[in-house]
Amino acid sequence: MATMPDRFWNEAIETLSPGEVRRLENERLTEQVAYDVATSPFYRAKLDRAGVTADEIRHVEDLARIPFMEKGEVADSQADGTLLGINQCAPLDTIVRIQATGGTTGQPMRIGLTRRDIADYGEVGARALWAMGCRPGDIVFECMNYNLYAGGLSDHLTFETLGAATIPFGVGHSERLLRMMAGLRDPVGIWATPSYAVRLAEVAAQLGIEPRSVGLRRGYFSGEAGLQVPGYRERIQDTWGMVARDQYGTGELGLHSGECEEQNGVHFGGVGIAIAELIDPDSGEVLPFTDGRQGEVVYTSIRRQACPLLRMRSHDLMQVFTEPCPCGRTSFRFRILGRSDDMFIVKGVNVFPLSVQAVLMRLAPRVTGEFRVVIDRPPPIDYPVPLTVEVARDVPTAQHEALAREVATRLQAELNFTAAVTLVGPGTIATEVKTRRVVRTYRGEVVQ
Amino acid sequence: MATMPDRFWNEAIETLSPGEVRRLENERLTEQVAYDVATSPFYRAKLDRAGVTADEIRHVEDLARIPFMEKGEVADSQADGTLLGINQCAPLDTIVRIQATGGTTGQPMRIGLTRRDIADYGEVGARALWAMGCRPGDIVFECMNYNLYAGGLSDHLTFETLGAATIPFGVGHSERLLRMMAGLRDPVGIWATPSYAVRLAEVAAQLGIEPRSVGLRRGYFSGEAGLQVPGYRERIQDTWGMVARDQYGTGELGLHSGECEEQNGVHFGGVGIAIAELIDPDSGEVLPFTDGRQGEVVYTSIRRQACPLLRMRSHDLMQVFTEPCPCGRTSFRFRILGRSDDMFIVKGVNVFPLSVQAVLMRLAPRVTGEFRVVIDRPPPIDYPVPLTVEVARDVPTAQHEALAREVATRLQAELNFTAAVTLVGPGTIATEVKTRRVVRTYRGEVVQ
Repeated sequence: MATMPDRFWNEAIETLSPGEVRRLENERLTEQVAYDVATSPFYRAKLDRAGVTADEIRHVEDLARIPFMEKGEVADSQADGTLLGINQCAPLDTIVRIQATGGTTGQPMRIGLTRRDIADYGEVGARALWAMGCRPGDIVFECMNYNLYAGGLSDHLTFETLGAATIPFGVGHSERLLRMMAGLRDPVGIWATPSYAVRLAEVAAQLGIEPRSVGLRRGYFSGEAGLQVPGYRERIQDTWGMVARDQYGTGELGLHSGECEEQNGVHFGGVGIAIAELIDPDSGEVLPFTDGRQGEVVYTSIRRQACPLLRMRSHDLMQVFTEPCPCGRTSFRFRILGRSDDMFIVKGVNVFPLSVQAVLMRLAPRVTGEFRVVIDRPPPIDYPVPLTVEVARDVPTAQHEALAREVATRLQAELNFTAAVTLVGPGTIATEVKTRRVVRTYRGEVVQ
Repeated sequence: MATMPDRFWNEAIETLSPGEVRRLENERLTEQVAYDVATSPFYRAKLDRAGVTADEIRHVEDLARIPFMEKGEVADSQADGTLLGINQCAPLDTIVRIQATGGTTGQPMRIGLTRRDIADYGEVGARALWAMGCRPGDIVFECMNYNLYAGGLSDHLTFETLGAATIPFGVGHSERLLRMMAGLRDPVGIWATPSYAVRLAEVAAQLGIEPRSVGLRRGYFSGEAGLQVPGYRERIQDTWGMVARDQYGTGELGLHSGECEEQNGVHFGGVGIAIAELIDPDSGEVLPFTDGRQGEVVYTSIRRQACPLLRMRSHDLMQVFTEPCPCGRTSFRFRILGRSDDMFIVKGVNVFPLSVQAVLMRLAPRVTGEFRVVIDRPPPIDYPVPLTVEVARDVPTAQHEALAREVATRLQAELNFTAAVTLVGPGTIATEVKTRRVVRTYRGEVVQ
């Protein structure tokens, strides 16, 4: 197909045929595994134990011979005071940035980046943002947390790599943000979690500011998969008069995948930087990468110097789509189904927060769609699931009891579990940082 | 003199002779003024009004023909919603970063940076940090505010430019910082305000952590001139067992000057990027740049694309030193005397906060050296100056009254003004962000 000149950030990579992608992946995988084993006793031992040599890993399919690694292994190896732990493969004096990831489950893991790792981070981020419609000359407020986590500084620099005029705004000053955006003549964009767009509208309402008057016209959303829930995106778009686009990445890999104007899933943007395998989360078996397939994604770095990953389990469940996209990008697309750690099992039924959200959105505008499940006992969950749900401001208190019953009835009918529903006011649950939908207080997680 | 290979970040620039510096400045000034006038109606009108053409500005001395500009002019020009206002000289689609400066006095001013501006920012920062002893392989926690202000993101990237392993830590999590530093085997450094080092020791004391056990061995300090007060640096060094070095820069210029191991002033690091003139703050007359001279520094960009400055008044008063430094750097050195806006006048006597601090440090360890002046009425100050002073934890309450009297007596004797002294507990004044010493509540400033 004819490509438009401004369609891609990196046309050469983004329009590679599947065969060319695989050749590039095989070539870089071979180099990376040799590097990993040459520089890291951990990786050397890992391959040794599996009875495989670096030489034998020459194709993506060969990866199946190597055992998985878990983020926790790396985090644990840092607990003794080692800065980066077992997967550090580059000397400290070539590492210029240290960030952390995974504070939401267990110990944060420190990650190092060399200059080339940083450039790659910016490159894949720019591919994703370009797909999402961001362009040089756009003004973008970055409203993620700059402290320690990659979502701040490193993601900021993906916007700079693309060439947008990027403002490091950070979190925690919603009123100031609203006034600054409204005070600018030019339309602006925002980089935030989708639930922050909901929260910001709530703050605007409290200040008597009409969201559409603020000039916020584009939303680049990440950190939560909410935009893929029917109704959620539309509500954010309607509230602000904006175009809202979805994005996906992980702190440890720093890869970024963005949704194009076709809105039929998020395009994998990490071609040539990382390999994504799909596995059965229970058996660990590698699943074929066919259209519509669901599974857990596992990452392997193929161009990483400081802290390469080798079959790192993400515990993110996704459905992939391999049919060509009209936008011209050839990489696979996907939608996130949820995190396997966020999934909870009620009497044998798997429940994903995104499914709960989808049910709630069908009750909007009486509920906002924001909710939280707090589990205070170890499994099994053989009791009504404690579910807190935000009710809309204009629902009279007299109707709350009936609404709570209706929520429970719908969840029972559509998702097959019993919930103990508590209604709370709008603006109670969605926060400025990533909103956790399932909090397991019995293992020390806290409701923020 | 023989230069050591690891002595400089950029030996070619840092060891230029004064004549070579002047030639470089003249050449770049000529280019910059032509660019400013070609791209900005504001600068064109400015020169027109002065009856001078861009062609006539070919030497640093020619600058005297151009009127000064004030930060407020730029900030005011942004009040109508223009993103960058009158001194924007590059098109928006070449500008990739927007930050703000000057929130402490009046309206914040937005500043834009192109990719080359960012590279220059990193270059001069790396010169300063290298002079301060920072090296690749060092681990540095950056504890400045990443939200909006250049002191966060842009300064972080100066450490990355140099090659240190830089952690974007931000402000507001002192306990976590202490535990993370203490949990690392390697010694670490910190980039912070000097008063934050004081505050952090206070938090450590509350947690029962011995500061010297934390492994914090190098401090790169900026944002306040406190390190030049006799006793203040020594106290910080002793508390932590660290080497503390002083640094100076401004948000709008993004230049950074650092103190070398000789500790005889801060080396100007902006050679080839900006020209520093010295003026009489009252008459505006240009002062000769001779050893020991005191005056207000005025900045002119000579390699800036997005928002160049042309004789921008800093209102920072400095004393310059032009005698050669044994470290081999040839740029002038300086020490900051204070900000002209921070200076207050009591019955005709000019008082600088740094002088107050110097007096207090002579009463240490009974006082911590932290203090604040709150002025709640417009001038003149014909009444005792309200001065809040931190007393050390181990001074018995029974001795407070006598100590307060002693502080007042010393200030009267050494600085010739009368103070109404209130003592407060340690940890009350020094904050995680830049600590303001003089707060004028009558004009809307707030005590943080």
